[in-house]
Amino acid sequence: MIPMGQRARVASRILARASAEQKTAVMLSMADKISAEIDQILSSNREDLKKGIEAGLSESLLDRLALNVPRLEGIIADLRNVARLPDPVGENFDEAILPNGLRVSKRRVPLGVLAVIYEARPNVTIDVAALAIKTGNAVILKGGTETINTNRELVKMIRSALLECNLPADAVQFVDDPDRARVGELLEMHQYIDMVIPRGGAGLHQYCRENSSIPVITGGIGICHLFVDESADLEAALEVIQNAKLQRPTVCNALDTTLIHQAIAREFIPRLVECLAEHGVTFRADETALELLQNHPTGTRILPAGPNDFDTEWLSLILGLKVVQNLDEAIEHISIHSTGHSDGILTEDEPNARRFIDEVDSAAVYVNASTRFTDGGQLGLGAEVAISTQRLHARGPMGLRELTTYKWVIRGENHIRV
Amino acid sequence: MIPMGQRARVASRILARASAEQKTAVMLSMADKISAEIDQILSSNREDLKKGIEAGLSESLLDRLALNVPRLEGIIADLRNVARLPDPVGENFDEAILPNGLRVSKRRVPLGVLAVIYEARPNVTIDVAALAIKTGNAVILKGGTETINTNRELVKMIRSALLECNLPADAVQFVDDPDRARVGELLEMHQYIDMVIPRGGAGLHQYCRENSSIPVITGGIGICHLFVDESADLEAALEVIQNAKLQRPTVCNALDTTLIHQAIAREFIPRLVECLAEHGVTFRADETALELLQNHPTGTRILPAGPNDFDTEWLSLILGLKVVQNLDEAIEHISIHSTGHSDGILTEDEPNARRFIDEVDSAAVYVNASTRFTDGGQLGLGAEVAISTQRLHARGPMGLRELTTYKWVIRGENHIRV
Repeated sequence: MIPMGQRARVASRILARASAEQKTAVMLSMADKISAEIDQILSSNREDLKKGIEAGLSESLLDRLALNVPRLEGIIADLRNVARLPDPVGENFDEAILPNGLRVSKRRVPLGVLAVIYEARPNVTIDVAALAIKTGNAVILKGGTETINTNRELVKMIRSALLECNLPADAVQFVDDPDRARVGELLEMHQYIDMVIPRGGAGLHQYCRENSSIPVITGGIGICHLFVDESADLEAALEVIQNAKLQRPTVCNALDTTLIHQAIAREFIPRLVECLAEHGVTFRADETALELLQNHPTGTRILPAGPNDFDTEWLSLILGLKVVQNLDEAIEHISIHSTGHSDGILTEDEPNARRFIDEVDSAAVYVNASTRFTDGGQLGLGAEVAISTQRLHARGPMGLRELTTYKWVIRGENHIRV
Repeated sequence: MIPMGQRARVASRILARASAEQKTAVMLSMADKISAEIDQILSSNREDLKKGIEAGLSESLLDRLALNVPRLEGIIADLRNVARLPDPVGENFDEAILPNGLRVSKRRVPLGVLAVIYEARPNVTIDVAALAIKTGNAVILKGGTETINTNRELVKMIRSALLECNLPADAVQFVDDPDRARVGELLEMHQYIDMVIPRGGAGLHQYCRENSSIPVITGGIGICHLFVDESADLEAALEVIQNAKLQRPTVCNALDTTLIHQAIAREFIPRLVECLAEHGVTFRADETALELLQNHPTGTRILPAGPNDFDTEWLSLILGLKVVQNLDEAIEHISIHSTGHSDGILTEDEPNARRFIDEVDSAAVYVNASTRFTDGGQLGLGAEVAISTQRLHARGPMGLRELTTYKWVIRGENHIRV
């Protein structure tokens, strides 16, 4: 692993000075190669799927690792999209001329070498390589064992695109070894790696945070809340909650808990349950909500909330329901149970909206919108490498700019400090 | 330590919502209290000095821990200065209305809880507490054993100023225990601490990086270079180098190595040596420089550079000298030996200046100026909590803004994701 780190460091220095045109050319060449080699990629992917079935992987995992022509076309379209985004490297900002005449500015530069540790989905291989190249960073990829054949094939194409554009192939390297011990070794290589991005479950994030001597971007774990205030437009609230819960229930910004103001609970909760139950949602309700639903026709779908239910990221068709006395109790509940990912209020009351924004300390705080918008693509970043729920460097969706750092550039006329 | 962390977390939530006026009032009250209690502070400080002398601390360490009336007046002036700076908390930026009508912005918010681990100088206690309060962060201070009496006295005043302004005293806590094991415990408390800032030698930084599950701001170690290009104004270069080496030789942005273009080496090096030698500087010269100095009158001050001399942060009146063939060799030397703190070129050639800026990847890159300007106060930040030589979150001098993070604020009209 050490030589791999050394090669990445050397490659990163060259990539950092590549022009925007050169980097765009690599991405377009990657897109062409994937396009031209679809059969070869699908055949490697079938090998992975076959081994996955033999190994007894779950349906959902097999689905995540499977490629097909439409999925590959999506990957190619995303690549061409990233290629078109403006290059953040070299941008100057915070420019100033100081009273003594020193000219000071900051210049955006690549971070250096990234390590990305991920599972299953092979599209991450292409996404991450494209974002790294675009931002002038070298990257070491450690994908899941279950996609090793597909990833090997994709990385071959990426490296050949780099070479074709006179850039070092080692700008994108791949840990071609299924052994998980390699992850631990990566996390120790702080001389060669500048940032670790785990993309996977809470266990992987915790492991990286606890075992890394390199800064780790933790995130992607969302226990997300919507609070239906007394003044909310209840019709609209039903739609927003339905969207937040159902549009894609298995992702981190899907809704986990709905908090309902007691003044509207009696009217709203039965309607909410009815509207979601018909889409297969089941509920974990606090005592008050449970009482309001006592004789509800969908009663079998409603369980009393257990002690850990409000601290669970459901990633499925389960929704927590809790009646709160007022905005204070809603904010208090969120401050205790939220993972700081995405939380929102549905209200027509502007002072309440402001208090919620001021007092809820999550990466994304919403007023009258679905939590599903926490996504680089949806929030105007053009692309996304991860969603950070930590507080340093970057918070919430991370796009191109968040894969850069800056240096201070100071120009004088032989200035000395007095 | 855990209850201390819990108290800090609770206090941080209250401090995060304090108004700019309230925070300013705390700082002004701190200044008044220090002013009123100078005798009490000096008496605690004398206790520390007495114990320090008994324990055989070095002259320079005793000097760093000593307070006197002018030093306390300096601390009070700095406090009033920080109080006057604009409050970064609550600032909105990157505002946009997306095509679907969602209104998106980022709002600057405090990081939460800081832990600062430092040695000797008691002014750090006041500086750091002021910067933390200003930015709405709670802070846990772990000062050096040798200043425990002085720090205890200062922290008492800070906490009483907080209470007086209706803010929780626990916003500033002090580990009143000389045992170094407490540092290890702090570094594990990631539930309660958001950022660790070590202020001390390379050993402390390394210990923190290797043992912390909390993000650590490493920095403050500078092996700094100036390259005298063929086209440099040699008279001016002498002055700049003299300033970078002599203005304060014991700090991280003082000059360590001078690289000299071979075309001017024969003329420049003897003059440089003459001019610095009379201020007590001694030299570690590479073979070529040594040859040029063979019959120099200050010969006894010049030693051949040993194998580690170009990788040493001198923090004293020693200067490395090396003759390079050209700009490429200078950049190459810096890329190998610099700690990425502060490096500069002295040149009248604009293309060379540009290449140096583009290719030298240090936190601060200089053209025609002394490296001694790498300092928050000198570069217009108004105050400084640390100088970061890592790449994430903040690089170079860190001021108030670098002690904050942001949250995304997203306002819709019951928007759903399609």
